[in-house]
Amino acid sequence: MKNIAILGSTGSIGTQALQVIAANPEHFRVEVLTARHQVELLARQAIRFKPNMVVIADEGKYRELKELLRDEYIKVYAGEDAIAQVTETASVDVVLVAMVGYSGLLPTTRAIRAGKTIALANKETLVVAGELINRLATLHRTPVLPVDSEHSAIFQCLVGEGDNPVEKLILTASGGPFRGKDRAFLERVTPAQALQHPTWNMGRKVTIDSASLMNKGFEAIEARWLFDVSPSQIEVLVHPQSIVHSMVQFVDGSVKAQMGTPDMRLPIQYALSYPDRLPSDIPRVDFAACRSLSFEKPDAETFPNLSLALEAARRGGNCPCALNAANEIAVEAFLDECLSFTGMSRVIEQTMDTVSYIATPSLEEYIATDKEARRVARERLFN
Amino acid sequence: MKNIAILGSTGSIGTQALQVIAANPEHFRVEVLTARHQVELLARQAIRFKPNMVVIADEGKYRELKELLRDEYIKVYAGEDAIAQVTETASVDVVLVAMVGYSGLLPTTRAIRAGKTIALANKETLVVAGELINRLATLHRTPVLPVDSEHSAIFQCLVGEGDNPVEKLILTASGGPFRGKDRAFLERVTPAQALQHPTWNMGRKVTIDSASLMNKGFEAIEARWLFDVSPSQIEVLVHPQSIVHSMVQFVDGSVKAQMGTPDMRLPIQYALSYPDRLPSDIPRVDFAACRSLSFEKPDAETFPNLSLALEAARRGGNCPCALNAANEIAVEAFLDECLSFTGMSRVIEQTMDTVSYIATPSLEEYIATDKEARRVARERLFN
Repeated sequence: MKNIAILGSTGSIGTQALQVIAANPEHFRVEVLTARHQVELLARQAIRFKPNMVVIADEGKYRELKELLRDEYIKVYAGEDAIAQVTETASVDVVLVAMVGYSGLLPTTRAIRAGKTIALANKETLVVAGELINRLATLHRTPVLPVDSEHSAIFQCLVGEGDNPVEKLILTASGGPFRGKDRAFLERVTPAQALQHPTWNMGRKVTIDSASLMNKGFEAIEARWLFDVSPSQIEVLVHPQSIVHSMVQFVDGSVKAQMGTPDMRLPIQYALSYPDRLPSDIPRVDFAACRSLSFEKPDAETFPNLSLALEAARRGGNCPCALNAANEIAVEAFLDECLSFTGMSRVIEQTMDTVSYIATPSLEEYIATDKEARRVARERLFN
Repeated sequence: MKNIAILGSTGSIGTQALQVIAANPEHFRVEVLTARHQVELLARQAIRFKPNMVVIADEGKYRELKELLRDEYIKVYAGEDAIAQVTETASVDVVLVAMVGYSGLLPTTRAIRAGKTIALANKETLVVAGELINRLATLHRTPVLPVDSEHSAIFQCLVGEGDNPVEKLILTASGGPFRGKDRAFLERVTPAQALQHPTWNMGRKVTIDSASLMNKGFEAIEARWLFDVSPSQIEVLVHPQSIVHSMVQFVDGSVKAQMGTPDMRLPIQYALSYPDRLPSDIPRVDFAACRSLSFEKPDAETFPNLSLALEAARRGGNCPCALNAANEIAVEAFLDECLSFTGMSRVIEQTMDTVSYIATPSLEEYIATDKEARRVARERLFN
């Protein structure tokens, strides 16, 4: 029996993690649930799963949550710091970091320092501060298990390979809803169009990142840290069917791939059950029915965000942190219809080139870079 | 440094194994080479690789071999029994069983009893007597590593998975040169046509088995023993590109696949280097160039050999042994133009139904079954 803390339980990953836990009551128990501001859903989840603690990040919603849970024996807290604090609770075995954006960084470092197994669904944490997270995880001997389907695939392919050298990681990408479109089309794309993802059901921010291929760029940076490879060893390949979740090529020329139907419950469950696999009723791939799996190189000219992210990975230091902060501002502005789809790349590129470079930043310098990059990106929104 | 004995060094697998060894002189040394009757090639190989011992199965060729190697410090032996005996040599670490057909069984059992690591390229050994080989390997704690590309793929996918339950093994098949043809076409197929395999470069017997899909049926029986699954857990899928070498589906719905260019040096090298992987210059798969991987169910009605093999697997006991013996006779007759392509299935089916069933045969009973089945099959050739 593993006791799970879910940071971000009301989001897409969080709710699917609760489905996995509900399906495996003899293996998993919910110990902590946290949410940003969806207080009613958080309360319903708490009433159903009976965690020991719940935290609402938005302190203004504390009273409401407390009231909704008045009949339960559940400790109720509020505030960002409380989220970081509850991950340290002795009874927690695995911390599933399923918060969106930069906010996942601090609780993750706290949970690593407390020696908890991390199931990491928050990609910004590794994008922003991968080197720091790696250093902390090594120091505290804390396993950091990927939840993202691509990284879970690579992780599954590497199981049992010991020190066998990796030649190349092949990250697959669905290509997003705008695969095959040109820049003229992308200039006029609306948020509603961009929010239609062909295969995966995700949150709004991730869906936009997926449409712009920034998501794949983030994953390349993440993979670099999770699997200790150089950016040049990472190849992105568009695979519209989203059946092959990613691949690893070894030095002997052998390639291993992990596949499955596009269903996040599979990598979530694997991160929670690792190294074991538990039975699931997730639909199986019918290879004879899907008939064909296709692959093509991504269109880096039409989707410059992918190149920007790979460039940030090459520059290293605080550059990916600036990339991420600028992207969060740009995506927000696009969703608010204050910035065009293609304008996002312009804002990000200008921010990356403006923010002062730090080769090996401390946690405080990451926080400062994040702040500076957001300020720069906001200034560039309207010019 | 591993010392290798290659049984069947002049065949397709044997010569490719020598290429692998030549490319990795710091990892592998040739200790023993054996061949059936290709005495000149065996002598050339011996002069190049300087084994400690060579054996020619055909005793009539002993003098010739001895003469060819008169300037070398190499022990020369002849006869089937000598082949089995040299596998027991103390200095041998790995025995690569690359002989074709039933003749691989006896040397394999001897090498297992001597505690040698077995790299098994001879599928008939497991097809005929898989249960016995498994029992011996467990008793003597001898690893039996697959060399066949399909089984190597499954083996690679299972590395590090511990006791995680397998739901299904998916054996991929190129479909052979006659994929898409009907029975009327197959009635009139000549040996020359059947010997043209679209992707793999193999020996004549294996190429015919591949065209008739008997090869895939053998592999299903082999997989059953190598990976301890029931015949119902094995699915055959036609995959004409021969890039996905096989797949494993686990109980959580996750599928792992191993891929590569169709080049036998890759699985041969892996079996020799396992658990390590060594760099190789085998061409890499270019997924963007191959564009599409396709899958379809095999045409079991047009190719009844696949169904016959799966039926033999279900019946168990000495039935796969009878299947194999009848197939060896049938293929020989087809190559000699004494039997039609479709006639092979008839002879095999009649033999399987005639030979008396033994549920748990001893080694002697396997040998008796083999003899009886060959006799029955020969009788059925001409009616």
